[in-house]
Amino acid sequence: MQIAELRSGLTPPRIPTRALPEHAGETVRLAGWLHRLRQLGKISFLILRDHTGMAQVVLTEPEQIEQVAALGHESVVEVVGNAVAVPQAPGGVEIHAPAIEVIAAVNEQLPFDLYRPEIAAQLPTVLDHAAVANRHPSRRIYFQLAAALVAGFRTTLDELSFTEIFSPKLVGSATESGANVFALDYFESRAYLAQSPQFYKQMMVGVFERVYEVGPVFRAEPHDTARHLNEYVSLDAEMGFITDQRDVMRVLNQVIAGMVDAAAAKLEAAGAGDEFAIPEVPVEIPILHFADAMELLGKGDSEELDLAPADERDLCDWAEREHGSEWLFIEGYPMAKRPFYTHPDPQRPEYSRGFDLLFRGLELVTGGQRRHLYPDYLAALEAAGLSAEGMEGYLEAFKYGMPPHGGFAIGLERFVARLTGVQNVREVTLFPRTMTRLVP
Amino acid sequence: MQIAELRSGLTPPRIPTRALPEHAGETVRLAGWLHRLRQLGKISFLILRDHTGMAQVVLTEPEQIEQVAALGHESVVEVVGNAVAVPQAPGGVEIHAPAIEVIAAVNEQLPFDLYRPEIAAQLPTVLDHAAVANRHPSRRIYFQLAAALVAGFRTTLDELSFTEIFSPKLVGSATESGANVFALDYFESRAYLAQSPQFYKQMMVGVFERVYEVGPVFRAEPHDTARHLNEYVSLDAEMGFITDQRDVMRVLNQVIAGMVDAAAAKLEAAGAGDEFAIPEVPVEIPILHFADAMELLGKGDSEELDLAPADERDLCDWAEREHGSEWLFIEGYPMAKRPFYTHPDPQRPEYSRGFDLLFRGLELVTGGQRRHLYPDYLAALEAAGLSAEGMEGYLEAFKYGMPPHGGFAIGLERFVARLTGVQNVREVTLFPRTMTRLVP
Repeated sequence: MQIAELRSGLTPPRIPTRALPEHAGETVRLAGWLHRLRQLGKISFLILRDHTGMAQVVLTEPEQIEQVAALGHESVVEVVGNAVAVPQAPGGVEIHAPAIEVIAAVNEQLPFDLYRPEIAAQLPTVLDHAAVANRHPSRRIYFQLAAALVAGFRTTLDELSFTEIFSPKLVGSATESGANVFALDYFESRAYLAQSPQFYKQMMVGVFERVYEVGPVFRAEPHDTARHLNEYVSLDAEMGFITDQRDVMRVLNQVIAGMVDAAAAKLEAAGAGDEFAIPEVPVEIPILHFADAMELLGKGDSEELDLAPADERDLCDWAEREHGSEWLFIEGYPMAKRPFYTHPDPQRPEYSRGFDLLFRGLELVTGGQRRHLYPDYLAALEAAGLSAEGMEGYLEAFKYGMPPHGGFAIGLERFVARLTGVQNVREVTLFPRTMTRLVP
Repeated sequence: MQIAELRSGLTPPRIPTRALPEHAGETVRLAGWLHRLRQLGKISFLILRDHTGMAQVVLTEPEQIEQVAALGHESVVEVVGNAVAVPQAPGGVEIHAPAIEVIAAVNEQLPFDLYRPEIAAQLPTVLDHAAVANRHPSRRIYFQLAAALVAGFRTTLDELSFTEIFSPKLVGSATESGANVFALDYFESRAYLAQSPQFYKQMMVGVFERVYEVGPVFRAEPHDTARHLNEYVSLDAEMGFITDQRDVMRVLNQVIAGMVDAAAAKLEAAGAGDEFAIPEVPVEIPILHFADAMELLGKGDSEELDLAPADERDLCDWAEREHGSEWLFIEGYPMAKRPFYTHPDPQRPEYSRGFDLLFRGLELVTGGQRRHLYPDYLAALEAAGLSAEGMEGYLEAFKYGMPPHGGFAIGLERFVARLTGVQNVREVTLFPRTMTRLVP
């Protein structure tokens, strides 16, 4: 059972299971996890899983069958054997006459079976055992999608001359909203965890004109629902020298297309092209003004300042029906519900130049044009009853010349959930942080 | 002076100043900051700065000269004029007969001049006014280099089949080292800020085999020196199915080469190719065992368990002299100075399979092979006097099968400082966090 002697330079290098079909007829080396063992009397099938897929290893020697039967699921093994084309084998190629080396034996029962198509456990149990659960192919694909979405975000913005920045997550004041901020003792003073890189990405427009950041943001929201995470990954972009929010929306439109393309390519490469309904992204996502949206909803006379969840669903249905689009921009949200840095619509100052991008019935992205003139900031802060104290370093960017600018923020986990149709955002997060969950 | 009427579709679209030479003889539109104004009697030169460089705008109309003279430095302006090839102009092309629109007028004195070759202020003043200081070309290049290094890190690892992950920064226990951890109230419990993604990247080797993460790490170290940041960007990678640390070092060697190549390309593109001494990265960076390094230092009989800063400098001098390399791997550091998850050298168990990568006299990267067997973890924790409590989710990865694996972590700001020859790591950080600095 030992193949230590095969570790010399004469043995074939390890190949991923996905590459097996190209190696039919050869002696190959595989390594991975004992995903499943099927014992059928005088023959056993060891299903070996690596990060690219699975391979079936056929065991016929009684001694080897016995030895492998003693191994727990998820034991790490290395296999050297003959890759044989067998039409009825999964993937068309299986391994015969294997030498098997145990790299790490597992002696304990798993908290749930990983070899079944789905994990048969409640979400809290799955998340408690994330180190194991995330190995399940049905979960692994979520995180591959996340990586692909982020890569698509960066690639698109790189091509549009954006520069990546890294802003601090420890900040000196809880200024952006004041509420729902985590605070900590910081040597002799008090620090807070950044709720977003908003202020920093704006400041950096003064340096690079176009910037983006991918990083964690922290929200101390005391809500324990399927939509809430207290820490999540925010994909932020900000750009200068715009005419109005439409310039930002055009870039976002491209970014979304680039992200979805990258996700589709990843699914294809992972052999999971059919698992999820990947949306088309129109070259021009339809745009509806908030006031027109309210009209459409039959709420033209209402004084509501925001869209209710049911409204967002109805509007998405409308966009699908009228424009064949799963995406819909709502622009011009009332100023009253937007943060102080939001640029008003000069023609209708009660409306803003802020927008949301809705996708499949939910808000996925928030963005807009920001104010850029220093006196406007001072007036807006005063009007909002906010103090400029602690914000001097931010305001300095405007005091010393800022162009018209705007940007947007995309929640990564929410995007993955929408793409995969998963209802609970925690389910698509590697190690989610909620009010009651800080481990693993 | 208004060019509002030029904003129609008939006007040329904005071009970056760097593209000016290609547009000689045309009417062009530029936008940017009033970097400098030189008044020479009947002629004034407005130096306009955008994110790509500078352009000289020649003013000859008395009224326009007067209007521009009233603008403060860093005012944001848009210029439409004739691009004229003039050999003695900076860049060979300047703008004549401009129409100028003021987008954002600056009325206040800057904290320091941005138009001089260097900022004439002490570092604390520079950092207090980071929103403005980071616009200075001499600083801007640091952050472009940082972005390029990170891009090179990702590109190299993507090509080597690594998957990007996003691990939580809020963690439930201060387990990795115990000391120097920031703590915060987290709803009904206590949370800590992650000092590194070490545990998570190891756990994710069980999922993707090869992973990387770029993100903030937090160190509550009470040291206020030129080498310390309390928050910095860590570039982490971890890979499974290795033979020993040498496999990790080979990947790191490639990663470093990819990062340096990306940095060199960025400098070239920014027209700053000559500003910094970009190092060669050997195909095989020389490797020295810790014990041999001590011999070389004449400390063969000493019981020192780590290299002193002077030792690191001496060893780098040696590598330069003997191998013509600015890079040097030291492997096999004594186990006594390495964390509990470090894999010992089976042949010499007092030495580890950990390594550092030295660059220009300083440690730049730390890495090594980790333990992968569950019983070894239990024993190592006990030997280190550490409790497994709070670590169950991490240990589960080993309980349920992990291959031999290892990885490394690169400090981004330190890398930028070494590449640029800057002594104080804070100087190359956008918005540094130190014991006494939380703003801006």
